[in-house]
Amino acid sequence: VNDSKRLEAFSDGVMAIAITLLVLDLHVPPPADAEAHGLAAALAHQWPSYAAYLVSFLVIGIIWINHHAMFSLVRRIDRAVLFSNLALLMVVSLIPFPTELLAEYLTAGAAAHVAAAVYSVTMLGMAVAFTLLWWAISRDDRLLHAHVSIGRAALRRFGFGMVIYAGAVGLSFVNAYATLAVHGALALYYCFDQLNPSATAAETARASVE
Amino acid sequence: VNDSKRLEAFSDGVMAIAITLLVLDLHVPPPADAEAHGLAAALAHQWPSYAAYLVSFLVIGIIWINHHAMFSLVRRIDRAVLFSNLALLMVVSLIPFPTELLAEYLTAGAAAHVAAAVYSVTMLGMAVAFTLLWWAISRDDRLLHAHVSIGRAALRRFGFGMVIYAGAVGLSFVNAYATLAVHGALALYYCFDQLNPSATAAETARASVE
Amino acid sequence: VNDSKRLEAFSDGVMAIAITLLVLDLHVPPPADAEAHGLAAALAHQWPSYAAYLVSFLVIGIIWINHHAMFSLVRRIDRAVLFSNLALLMVVSLIPFPTELLAEYLTAGAAAHVAAAVYSVTMLGMAVAFTLLWWAISRDDRLLHAHVSIGRAALRRFGFGMVIYAGAVGLSFVNAYATLAVHGALALYYCFDQLNPSATAAETARASVE
Amino acid sequence: VNDSKRLEAFSDGVMAIAITLLVLDLHVPPPADAEAHGLAAALAHQWPSYAAYLVSFLVIGIIWINHHAMFSLVRRIDRAVLFSNLALLMVVSLIPFPTELLAEYLTAGAAAHVAAAVYSVTMLGMAVAFTLLWWAISRDDRLLHAHVSIGRAALRRFGFGMVIYAGAVGLSFVNAYATLAVHGALALYYCFDQLNPSATAAETARASVE
Repeated sequence: VNDSKRLEAFSDGVMAIAITLLVLDLHVPPPADAEAHGLAAALAHQWPSYAAYLVSFLVIGIIWINHHAMFSLVRRIDRAVLFSNLALLMVVSLIPFPTELLAEYLTAGAAAHVAAAVYSVTMLGMAVAFTLLWWAISRDDRLLHAHVSIGRAALRRFGFGMVIYAGAVGLSFVNAYATLAVHGALALYYCFDQLNPSATAAETARASVE
Repeated sequence: VNDSKRLEAFSDGVMAIAITLLVLDLHVPPPADAEAHGLAAALAHQWPSYAAYLVSFLVIGIIWINHHAMFSLVRRIDRAVLFSNLALLMVVSLIPFPTELLAEYLTAGAAAHVAAAVYSVTMLGMAVAFTLLWWAISRDDRLLHAHVSIGRAALRRFGFGMVIYAGAVGLSFVNAYATLAVHGALALYYCFDQLNPSATAAETARASVE
Repeated sequence: VNDSKRLEAFSDGVMAIAITLLVLDLHVPPPADAEAHGLAAALAHQWPSYAAYLVSFLVIGIIWINHHAMFSLVRRIDRAVLFSNLALLMVVSLIPFPTELLAEYLTAGAAAHVAAAVYSVTMLGMAVAFTLLWWAISRDDRLLHAHVSIGRAALRRFGFGMVIYAGAVGLSFVNAYATLAVHGALALYYCFDQLNPSATAAETARASVE
Repeated sequence: VNDSKRLEAFSDGVMAIAITLLVLDLHVPPPADAEAHGLAAALAHQWPSYAAYLVSFLVIGIIWINHHAMFSLVRRIDRAVLFSNLALLMVVSLIPFPTELLAEYLTAGAAAHVAAAVYSVTMLGMAVAFTLLWWAISRDDRLLHAHVSIGRAALRRFGFGMVIYAGAVGLSFVNAYATLAVHGALALYYCFDQLNPSATAAETARASVE
């Protein structure tokens, strides 16, 4: 009854859709542009769209992989988990909007700072929601599989992530390009971090099982 | 053969997509607006879109959580359940349309009343469909897990919900802002209500199992 | 390895998305229209969109229910089933296009006949694909659960459906409104037909199991 | 914990959405076109959209079928599989963009070569990602079900596919129509190839199980 199967299925659905809807942010250049400069140039001119697409795709992909790792530790869920998961899904399903905003305004001078800040605040919200979900799961040992114990290190790690994302919000007002690059680097960092099993929270917990 | 696995998977799919498509109702402000007033002001000016997004996201999220709780009581389904579930999914998948309508016209004077009424009628339709589904499930004990018995309280509660939503339809013609606020408050109420296990229909039923 | 679980999951996904994407065919009336005639009148003026939405939603819903009933008989699948299922999914995922076409041109005189014909041809294609899938499943007893035998009646029924849809293609050139009404009536007919267990193919087959 | 269930569910979701979003690339002709030339002519004039839709639908469908066959051999997954699968999903979820690009510019002279090249590069990226995923799975026998051994033939086959797709990139600059035809022919070839069990990599592997 209270197992996490359907919650995982619903979350997989929302994350799969959000990650796939990102493609709607890529627009085919209008014929007038293609005629004036050539289609190749018109496509190249859209590079902020591709950069934003790539970063957001990586971000949602990493969230999914972490979500997957986290719930592999979970034996049953309660309503606090249900609602903090819903909060995470709300942020994830929002991501296509700041992605399109940043793609549109990245090269637009002053507006670029606003767009980068909105993007960074969304990522900060995602980190907060993820930490909340992690706390909801780890606060009660009965929600976890037997013999899994999660150290304080995990929550500290997530707290660290929030500090970085808060820094990215500040950086937005200095340089929008650098902000997007930082988000891309963070996503790649989390990728490689995941590849190093002993370093991640979920793996720390799992390690204590084996 | 008649178990509810695939019905739940299909319903999860439709609800996950409807909740994620809401983001398509958020539009990046056109460059002309951003230049005239600044991007921050142009984004702030779209607050009805964010408010409508938030309320509709909560509504679909709550529906999913209730659907999840309801089907945790179900042992097998019949065609009446199949078709009343399809009716619920039709209303749920419609929600992005009245959401965009309300976001577009919330600040538009007379048209706001019409938009709020369409939004409220959709929510009323959702409450009716949910009650119908609940009735289809609870009308036949063989559809439920052994030892689950659902009191009349549950159906009374749903009937009460319909009265509130009918009231929201009326309120639409008085004040569109208040109507949106009421829908948001109702969604939050159902959230907290769910957090209080003994109060909800599904939990009432479950309580009688344990 | 060859069971139908993942095929059903993928099909559920495609059908859930196609049925939910229909809502993107409903457009919020532009402010100019709302100011000229009032929002209520502008919305009412879009009635072909709602009618087409309703009919297409019912059609995809019925296809899902029939798909569900059909695969409840299936024990294992082979490549012929895989590919005929893919053909069915192609037609289903196309449905939002003729739906929007019919909604746009239903009241447009001569163009309405073309739009209705495209809609009807899509439905005919759906009936053909469904029959093909049914044939692929029923052609080899090893694909079905033990003791299930499917009579010739089932294939005859599907053949009958194709004749009706072919008739709807012809009707398109006479009256587009009547064509949409026929498609709605057919969907309702299949609903009620499904509610009468002994009449349907899947149930015929299932009846022979029990 | 490390089984492939959730990875398959997430991949099914992304592929189901990408394949269904293709329909958004089909646009209802604007009333002005329908009045000037008749709706039938306006629809016929969009034939590149239908051709591109058909080819891309087949491509994603084949990827899903191959993905399905590949993971039927897999017993457990590791992070290399997780990340190479994510790379494949990124290419798959991109496909609606080059599809719309090719549909828009197929008949546009010089721009057609650019559009066809972008389309072909996407397909090449897909072949590379698929080969990478296959390598990630086959590099470690512990990831496969007992007694499954995958010959070198499989990787050679995938390498051959990459050469063909690289050729299609070159062909784009010669003739865009021929390029689309080649992609369609390749998809059909993979269909029929799949129907010939002894020829495919997955089947080769499976054959060695039985």
